[in-house]
Amino acid sequence: MAFEFKAIRRVEFSETDMAGIVHYSNFFKYMETAEHGFFRALGHSVVMDQFDPPVGWPRVHAECDYRLPLRFEDEVEIHLLVSEKKSKSLSYIFKFRKLNGPQPIEVAHGSLTVVCVTKGMDGKLSAATIPEAFSDKIEVAPAEML
Amino acid sequence: MAFEFKAIRRVEFSETDMAGIVHYSNFFKYMETAEHGFFRALGHSVVMDQFDPPVGWPRVHAECDYRLPLRFEDEVEIHLLVSEKKSKSLSYIFKFRKLNGPQPIEVAHGSLTVVCVTKGMDGKLSAATIPEAFSDKIEVAPAEML
Amino acid sequence: MAFEFKAIRRVEFSETDMAGIVHYSNFFKYMETAEHGFFRALGHSVVMDQFDPPVGWPRVHAECDYRLPLRFEDEVEIHLLVSEKKSKSLSYIFKFRKLNGPQPIEVAHGSLTVVCVTKGMDGKLSAATIPEAFSDKIEVAPAEML
Amino acid sequence: MAFEFKAIRRVEFSETDMAGIVHYSNFFKYMETAEHGFFRALGHSVVMDQFDPPVGWPRVHAECDYRLPLRFEDEVEIHLLVSEKKSKSLSYIFKFRKLNGPQPIEVAHGSLTVVCVTKGMDGKLSAATIPEAFSDKIEVAPAEML
Repeated sequence: MAFEFKAIRRVEFSETDMAGIVHYSNFFKYMETAEHGFFRALGHSVVMDQFDPPVGWPRVHAECDYRLPLRFEDEVEIHLLVSEKKSKSLSYIFKFRKLNGPQPIEVAHGSLTVVCVTKGMDGKLSAATIPEAFSDKIEVAPAEML
Repeated sequence: MAFEFKAIRRVEFSETDMAGIVHYSNFFKYMETAEHGFFRALGHSVVMDQFDPPVGWPRVHAECDYRLPLRFEDEVEIHLLVSEKKSKSLSYIFKFRKLNGPQPIEVAHGSLTVVCVTKGMDGKLSAATIPEAFSDKIEVAPAEML
Repeated sequence: MAFEFKAIRRVEFSETDMAGIVHYSNFFKYMETAEHGFFRALGHSVVMDQFDPPVGWPRVHAECDYRLPLRFEDEVEIHLLVSEKKSKSLSYIFKFRKLNGPQPIEVAHGSLTVVCVTKGMDGKLSAATIPEAFSDKIEVAPAEML
Repeated sequence: MAFEFKAIRRVEFSETDMAGIVHYSNFFKYMETAEHGFFRALGHSVVMDQFDPPVGWPRVHAECDYRLPLRFEDEVEIHLLVSEKKSKSLSYIFKFRKLNGPQPIEVAHGSLTVVCVTKGMDGKLSAATIPEAFSDKIEVAPAEML
């Protein structure tokens, strides 16, 4: 049973803006990097074609608190923790730590809620129970970590 | 005194992802489109070089709730409303409406808190009082609109 | 018969990088804005689901020469001109002009070659003849404009 | 003396578009990933603040030929080769290889020309000789590799 995953990225030039820092929208791309790495670490892709019917994971809520800026070539750790697990949805929190300073420092804190959906005959998406083969592998992180 | 602004965008192909819908991180770019249009409508740029010292507006909090997807070529209205005004920060909410359906429909709801900062001699940013010439032009939207 | 289209965009904050100018990759997104506007002006979407079989337009070549930088809030005109028309492909050139200076000035010059494709039973894409209903509406721009 | 560098990236979900493949503009971001990795491998950052005056590297030409699509979670190697070295500019070619198939396969081929510039007293950029401390470390790749 897994409840966390850490991804590391180096800030790209194209992720900065004219203020000289990472554009705030990119933190949401960074969250996905960790989320999809978490899925892969469990032997799954977020594109779950192997299930019948195939399921997808649209986002229903996303947020981020920004404390310190990230700059070009900074090394950032994105620490995903499962904060809630329901039959049809998952919530994560994300701790962003800059690693290349005198000591690791938390620069941002985010969260994401995603819903498991499947596509009906009519092409419409509707919420679906998370496939057991995946659900059985994950659990909520210990409270003291959240 | 202004408390709202509406921007309209057409969804670009490059804003979609392999799920066929606008990638969730782009809603945060859309928020900025409305925010910066709001500034321009008041005769200002978000890059406030005309003040001495110059001020900037880093984001400290951003969030979004996603209700319905946006697709390629959809026309989306981003309705900014000032939800809070403090001496050194502003908060906005954003209502995203898809305009090109049978009737306008709200597809997402976001919010943003930005802080007015200025750069010190040492290059460090610190919170600053919003310049009067700008502050005098804005007010919080009526409660029933929020 | 159409051979040109002009789109206008205002540079977004999120399109700039830490050098204070539009990131060079964004000029390729700007090209698409003009290309898709060109299609729409002819009553078509680049996503051509109305044909049987549906066709798509992957890019096979793209290039851009950069002369002058674009900055935040600059107004840029993207002038598309059809430079070549074959049975299964189209080429465009793009002239980027900054409009908000003392006089319009060309800041970049790009080109794009796209191929008309259709998806076979096996899911593989193969080059296809451009549907007549679309092809009949476009022609190559006069040589002196290219 | 160095003339090449290889960077590896895994395709992110946010880099795909509704056609299910990596958006063509992202190949230009991938090129930068390799270019900046090349600089770092030589002990430099593309943001060369350590020189007096500081130098920057704006792009003057970029192009890409697309042969095969890249998809979500594909592993792509970006192989940079120095193709030209002048006193004030550098040119690179880039070979994009997809690594996660039965065998590595070239999916795209790009090139980039960048100019070394410095900022004058008046804030204007002008072409400058590449600093020796950097120039001495690089050479053009053998012809048979280009």
